[in-house]
Amino acid sequence: MRNFDETTITDAVLERVRNAPDLRQRFVSEAIVRHLHDFVREVEPSQKEWAEAIAFLTRVGQKCTDTRQEFILLSDTLGVSMLVDAINHRFPGNATQTTVLGPFHVVDAPEFALGDDISGGMAGAPLLVEGSVSSIDRQPIAGAVVEFWHADAEGFYDVQSEAGLTNLAGRGVVRTGAKGEFWFQTVIPAAYPIPDDGPVGDMLKAQGRHPYRPAHVHFMMSAPNCETLVTHLFLADSEYLDSDVVFGVKDALICELETQPAGPTARGNWISKDMAALRYDFVLADADR
Amino acid sequence: MRNFDETTITDAVLERVRNAPDLRQRFVSEAIVRHLHDFVREVEPSQKEWAEAIAFLTRVGQKCTDTRQEFILLSDTLGVSMLVDAINHRFPGNATQTTVLGPFHVVDAPEFALGDDISGGMAGAPLLVEGSVSSIDRQPIAGAVVEFWHADAEGFYDVQSEAGLTNLAGRGVVRTGAKGEFWFQTVIPAAYPIPDDGPVGDMLKAQGRHPYRPAHVHFMMSAPNCETLVTHLFLADSEYLDSDVVFGVKDALICELETQPAGPTARGNWISKDMAALRYDFVLADADR
Repeated sequence: MRNFDETTITDAVLERVRNAPDLRQRFVSEAIVRHLHDFVREVEPSQKEWAEAIAFLTRVGQKCTDTRQEFILLSDTLGVSMLVDAINHRFPGNATQTTVLGPFHVVDAPEFALGDDISGGMAGAPLLVEGSVSSIDRQPIAGAVVEFWHADAEGFYDVQSEAGLTNLAGRGVVRTGAKGEFWFQTVIPAAYPIPDDGPVGDMLKAQGRHPYRPAHVHFMMSAPNCETLVTHLFLADSEYLDSDVVFGVKDALICELETQPAGPTARGNWISKDMAALRYDFVLADADR
Repeated sequence: MRNFDETTITDAVLERVRNAPDLRQRFVSEAIVRHLHDFVREVEPSQKEWAEAIAFLTRVGQKCTDTRQEFILLSDTLGVSMLVDAINHRFPGNATQTTVLGPFHVVDAPEFALGDDISGGMAGAPLLVEGSVSSIDRQPIAGAVVEFWHADAEGFYDVQSEAGLTNLAGRGVVRTGAKGEFWFQTVIPAAYPIPDDGPVGDMLKAQGRHPYRPAHVHFMMSAPNCETLVTHLFLADSEYLDSDVVFGVKDALICELETQPAGPTARGNWISKDMAALRYDFVLADADR
């Protein structure tokens, strides 16, 4: 096989990947080739433009570090992460809605006891988070693993500081109590621009887009026999709810902050000072749905 | 705009990139979004698969160095580079056929005088290269810049050694003489696997493909008012002419090596020992075609 031109090259490449021993690998490879070639055939990039595309993707990869994932940013800002999320969460029923993981999740975040202040000294007004985790048949799930992470009042995550992974703050893990309940104390996060000093930021500028996300707290929750839930709670008074740069906002995940005076809380916990309160009852889908 | 699902997310992203101030940027951005979303909709990746795709692209970017361009390898092995080449070189007329640039081109390669040995001590049997450069109306082009690079008898380029860019060999630049002629001495290159110790190598294995290219010498030629020519000459006795991993082979670029005894050469040059000879007359397209 030789002498390929624009009418024969695609079939030649498809023929070549047809030997993939794994059927899924073969299917995905064929789809990559078809769609990528279709894109090139539509856009007809000049050699210079294609070299620029190669250089752009290279910069995206080289911008990635232990604490920055520029390819996730690219996927998020092109709406692909939300599309993948939607495809994987059809018919959620009464299970809590999902949204993107984002690039700031850290594995092995520190464990906390219920009620702890998890802010790690982050700047911001005090925030009480009270919630619960149940199954879709409304049974509370004790011992569910509740992971959370959020930005500070300036809109920065812990891992964006120079300390990186060595000074985690505003993130952690708790386990739900006997009635599926959890709570922790932290600070109110601000809306923020995604990191836009790299190639994805350059892309957004070229596309005439702002880089902002509305204020939110990330959650990831898991329990035996349940599907792991990846979602956010968005703050109702935040800017950018209608123009989230990663297309992640859902009405069902927007929460009004409540006022909670010092003393016993609405959910029977106890705090020593006045706080804003963020409350939500999460429902995990069955793993075998 | 919020609450996006798989039926609405694509239009939402298209709407967002519609603000791109540059029309070409807008057109390309829209095409990227449509084709990328179509791919995802067809393949329906699991969250785990999408995370693996992100990790793969990150590895590709992180594998790139001053002397290794893994994204070009990816583009080459998926047939995209040859497709872009084909789209940009329709109707070549009698101009020399084009093929891929590949990942081993180095800017500012050393200049040589006509007839020099450019092998830099590379291993291999001696090879005489004699050629000419003319315009499509058969006028010889004096002073054309002829750049060339090739692997050694083991199939390795200079920049693949630990010395990297500090010990260039088997590459250089000469300028054609008054009759458009050029010649240099070097060694016969071998067929070789593209660098397959990285993510692109992993992909080829998963696709059940070999990583080999047939033996060849790269050329890039430029002259005033002519389109820069990027091409190879392939050696007719090489393996893999019909299964080049980057789909680059064209019959018009395959050359039989000739036998050239020491003394005056077929083209009026002079060599001191017996050599194989690679001869080709290149024709540059007009820049304004």
